[in-house]
Amino acid sequence: MGFWKSFFGSADTASTSTKFEGDTISNFSESPASGDRADNGRILFSTDREFDLYELEELCDAVGWSRRPMRKVRKAIQYSFLVVSMWQQRGNTRRLIGFARATSDHAFNATIWDVVVHPQFQGKGLGKALMKYTIKKLRSEDISNITLFADPQVVNFYRQMGFMADPEGIKGMFWYPD
Amino acid sequence: MGFWKSFFGSADTASTSTKFEGDTISNFSESPASGDRADNGRILFSTDREFDLYELEELCDAVGWSRRPMRKVRKAIQYSFLVVSMWQQRGNTRRLIGFARATSDHAFNATIWDVVVHPQFQGKGLGKALMKYTIKKLRSEDISNITLFADPQVVNFYRQMGFMADPEGIKGMFWYPD
Repeated sequence: MGFWKSFFGSADTASTSTKFEGDTISNFSESPASGDRADNGRILFSTDREFDLYELEELCDAVGWSRRPMRKVRKAIQYSFLVVSMWQQRGNTRRLIGFARATSDHAFNATIWDVVVHPQFQGKGLGKALMKYTIKKLRSEDISNITLFADPQVVNFYRQMGFMADPEGIKGMFWYPD
Repeated sequence: MGFWKSFFGSADTASTSTKFEGDTISNFSESPASGDRADNGRILFSTDREFDLYELEELCDAVGWSRRPMRKVRKAIQYSFLVVSMWQQRGNTRRLIGFARATSDHAFNATIWDVVVHPQFQGKGLGKALMKYTIKKLRSEDISNITLFADPQVVNFYRQMGFMADPEGIKGMFWYPD
């Protein structure tokens, strides 16, 4: 619970809008690749769906995901139950550095999709912060069953976040056309 | 494709409403338990959400599922992307004998939940018919990624339906609170 407190729950959290929540992550610094290691960023989270989809495309490009039609991405965001974006703020400039979304029946189940953190911002606990924020939001909506499909290389990451693979032998399955 | 044709695609399918689709399943007969083995039923499928939730509760009771609050079940049905019910019709009477629903982002992913066939109607290919109908509906909405979480005893059933467990090492994961 200490984590929540320090990241999101502090009374002096300065939110720039009702949909933005954030706090400075004390140990956050730019990756060496950015050439600006001294400049600590302020990390904000938002559930607002009104952001530039080209910025999201850029983020997905940065992690090597295949491009998807903008029209379908827009629709998926519209019909997702929860959309979480993570931003680095410097002065008046915000940069999209992370994203996650979830589908849901608004009652029992939610499934998290498209979790991404910009490579320059990986290895700093920000993926963990993004997931904690996402889980917190889903739990606050009384969703009891939070699920996801994890690629092999991130199974351990999600394990650390409290996710269990194949609990009681339940198998995640994907349909493939004949 | 022959399956589709005989079950759902025949030109002479008599639908009782635009949302009902069905055809007599030639090899369908009541289970011995019903004491009425001679009376072949007519099986109908519907995507209509307006049905008696107490009938659904009865169906779920019959397979031993834990009761869930009606209010939440109603909400889950309302916010599911697709709701499929399977009915046995005899004269003017319809009986709910199967159910499935799916959450979705309306663009890329759908996840199927709550697949149930009444025990008296199991072992007759109706679970398969219910799933084929559900997959057909999702595919017709241009959903490319159809997923589900299968209990161990039904993994093989879903395999036969074209689902693959853990493709490329992708693991289905469930979140559990600390």
